[in-house]
Amino acid sequence: MADRDTGIEFDLAVVGGGSGGLAGAFRAAEHGARVVLFEPDALGGTCVNLGCVPKKAMWLAADLAGRLRMAPSLGFNGLAGGHDGGIDRLDWQVFIAHRQRYISNIHAAYRRRLDAAGIVVRPSRARLVAADTLECDDGVRVIAKQVLLATGGHALRPDVPGAALGGVSDDFFAWRAAPERVAIVGGGYIAVELAGVLQALGSQVDLFVRGTRLLNGFDAQLCEQLAEDYRQHGVRVHFGYGLGEVESADGGGVRLRDATGQASERFDALLFATGRAPNSAGLGLDAVGVATDARGHVIVDARHATSVDGVHAVGDLGTDAALTPVAIAAARRLMDRLFGGRDALFDACDIATVVFSHPPIGKVGLTEAEARERHGDAVHVFSAGFRPMLQALAESPQRSLFKLVCVGQERRVIGIHLLGEAADEILQGFAVAMKRGITLDDLRDTVAIHPTSAEEVVLMR
Amino acid sequence: MADRDTGIEFDLAVVGGGSGGLAGAFRAAEHGARVVLFEPDALGGTCVNLGCVPKKAMWLAADLAGRLRMAPSLGFNGLAGGHDGGIDRLDWQVFIAHRQRYISNIHAAYRRRLDAAGIVVRPSRARLVAADTLECDDGVRVIAKQVLLATGGHALRPDVPGAALGGVSDDFFAWRAAPERVAIVGGGYIAVELAGVLQALGSQVDLFVRGTRLLNGFDAQLCEQLAEDYRQHGVRVHFGYGLGEVESADGGGVRLRDATGQASERFDALLFATGRAPNSAGLGLDAVGVATDARGHVIVDARHATSVDGVHAVGDLGTDAALTPVAIAAARRLMDRLFGGRDALFDACDIATVVFSHPPIGKVGLTEAEARERHGDAVHVFSAGFRPMLQALAESPQRSLFKLVCVGQERRVIGIHLLGEAADEILQGFAVAMKRGITLDDLRDTVAIHPTSAEEVVLMR
Repeated sequence: MADRDTGIEFDLAVVGGGSGGLAGAFRAAEHGARVVLFEPDALGGTCVNLGCVPKKAMWLAADLAGRLRMAPSLGFNGLAGGHDGGIDRLDWQVFIAHRQRYISNIHAAYRRRLDAAGIVVRPSRARLVAADTLECDDGVRVIAKQVLLATGGHALRPDVPGAALGGVSDDFFAWRAAPERVAIVGGGYIAVELAGVLQALGSQVDLFVRGTRLLNGFDAQLCEQLAEDYRQHGVRVHFGYGLGEVESADGGGVRLRDATGQASERFDALLFATGRAPNSAGLGLDAVGVATDARGHVIVDARHATSVDGVHAVGDLGTDAALTPVAIAAARRLMDRLFGGRDALFDACDIATVVFSHPPIGKVGLTEAEARERHGDAVHVFSAGFRPMLQALAESPQRSLFKLVCVGQERRVIGIHLLGEAADEILQGFAVAMKRGITLDDLRDTVAIHPTSAEEVVLMR
Repeated sequence: MADRDTGIEFDLAVVGGGSGGLAGAFRAAEHGARVVLFEPDALGGTCVNLGCVPKKAMWLAADLAGRLRMAPSLGFNGLAGGHDGGIDRLDWQVFIAHRQRYISNIHAAYRRRLDAAGIVVRPSRARLVAADTLECDDGVRVIAKQVLLATGGHALRPDVPGAALGGVSDDFFAWRAAPERVAIVGGGYIAVELAGVLQALGSQVDLFVRGTRLLNGFDAQLCEQLAEDYRQHGVRVHFGYGLGEVESADGGGVRLRDATGQASERFDALLFATGRAPNSAGLGLDAVGVATDARGHVIVDARHATSVDGVHAVGDLGTDAALTPVAIAAARRLMDRLFGGRDALFDACDIATVVFSHPPIGKVGLTEAEARERHGDAVHVFSAGFRPMLQALAESPQRSLFKLVCVGQERRVIGIHLLGEAADEILQGFAVAMKRGITLDDLRDTVAIHPTSAEEVVLMR
């Protein structure tokens, strides 16, 4: 049956209006496909509403707070009160009004683009009732030749008593002031980002990490330095912490108890950053036989096809790396194949990624440990530790640490790892170069741009 | 005759202890050469003492001033006085103490490295009396198998009446406060950098440019936007200005008169950024027959050899692009050839460079105009104009403009041009990639790092 409103059968139905779903819908429409998009909530999904965008906005505020604290000692002494006068105190209400205006502008831009592209938007969930048929909450059924599932994921709380007393990243974005004392449980990128932002914006943050390091998957040496940076900023980092339960504290707030029953100090707020799960419930996956893994992710192949013909999935719902640009790139390649007559595959190798910590950390390719496991003694590591000029001028202890992982006689670059001021912006170009294939000599043969942090990557010896 | 103090004949004599001379001396010593270095003034030359380094320091202060002005509207309202309360007022004495401490640390590091490398340093000028013999001011003669000339350059005043009433960039670095009203004559990178810094630090700047645009050699479209950014910051830009003379003004300061005799308003200070000349006088070039061009630059070939066997030149003294990293790279390659048994040539193609304007602008490869002249209709241009998130949050008018110049069916990237926040740090990696050879598809196939400015380079369509 065709769409009851439009009378047309669609070429593509997209379930989920996050970054991946939107990118797919737009690209398909560019190729002339008739597209319907289902999204009951805000357009842009996690990234725009509860992830990358508001996170980066808060990071920018935190970064600015850090610079404000640096300014008086550098000679900006028109600032009231100096170090203790609250020059770095942010009125969250004001800032969040800007942040949400920025996000509203993105929503409006999406709506304009959807209209211009002739994409039908249904503000409803949808579930598969057949491989080519989706049913909305109101019972309306829509037929489409191809289906793209892109409903994303959501944050999880750990399975311990009292977990409901803590929030997750979604809750953080609803806060309207920095709590005085915050506990964050987790050691991954969300935990590290939230801890950095909150500490910089005036909270006293305690970070409880199950393992013995931050940011598994990133270079161990850089993460050790990042942990040290966090300590310098005042974050208390507790490694090897097994959470037993959470309980209400007298006078408000919560206490954590570890696995041995030992109670923590009192915190005004608690955030869990202990993992995310795919939004695969209610999609009718079982009804039509779309296979999922043990954690509920829709299993896709390199072409983002599911186990059911004509049904595809991208983004955090599937089994790719859970990164917005990955979802976007995968969705575009998929639509180029389905409707554009191109056989472009999404290449999941060497995906660069950045964590907006304080300072930021980024990586592309293999860590030193991964490289040594794979290539043994053929691995050669080069690194540069230095203090960026601003930090040196302000006598800040914050240093940068850049690292190249190379292999073989020709020193082929197979990993680039950057920790420090501007790492977030420096990495992208080097990721292009590494993907193209470069050796250490290609870096050295490129004239440096002086004085920058980025030049340290081409000057390593 | 050998060195009277040491009794040794040197493998290499380096005349000039700037970046190029030092890089050459260090690299030669690494290869086991016995090296003597002549430098009567501060080590590090223009770059460290009167160029890149103090310039970047002032730029960092100016950049911070800009962020301080942005902060109150974003919600940092613990700042005294808000917009008009002088929160962005810099006490230059304090800042310059930091700046000069930073520079002293560089001097000390150079001295340690020179000592460690066993390089003999003579705090004297030196002139060639034969191809292998240099004479110091005190008459001591030193013999060396190879000579590297690297005495750099100096700023010029224009040849107009009253020019002595104005200063040059060296004088700017001696200032201890921002003058109220400053005139800057010139449209090149030094003029643009000084204008941006002074305006941001509280001066009212008038920029008098002979031509009709800023920054010849950079992409015209980006420079137009930069001129507009400068106007937004309050700089008054006067294009097509022919300077006739400079005169003292009643009540102090100066007035400019244009070629038609029309007088300007009064300025407290005047800076010329109208060109630089090589420090080739007093080097004994004529005595031994080292050829120079009409402007006094020592003529060198691709191997940095002069017209006299065994005498070489690098840096601003010679005919290369006047950039510190170029001098360093050229000197290192030269020493690798002379003492390291390697035949590495310095590749002067596609040198990336950044101007620390507000915001910064960078380029590598051909501008659109240069590309069209060379490749005609085969040129394809892609660009992205956007507002970085911080500027959007603060409702600042400052936008970024990134541009790719490509050629041919395969869209080979032959020029990358970046104007905007973080352009200085973003460019280096893309310069590596471009030197390696990339097409537009290589950019598009690289997953974006979100949300950054750098990702706009790989997302252009």
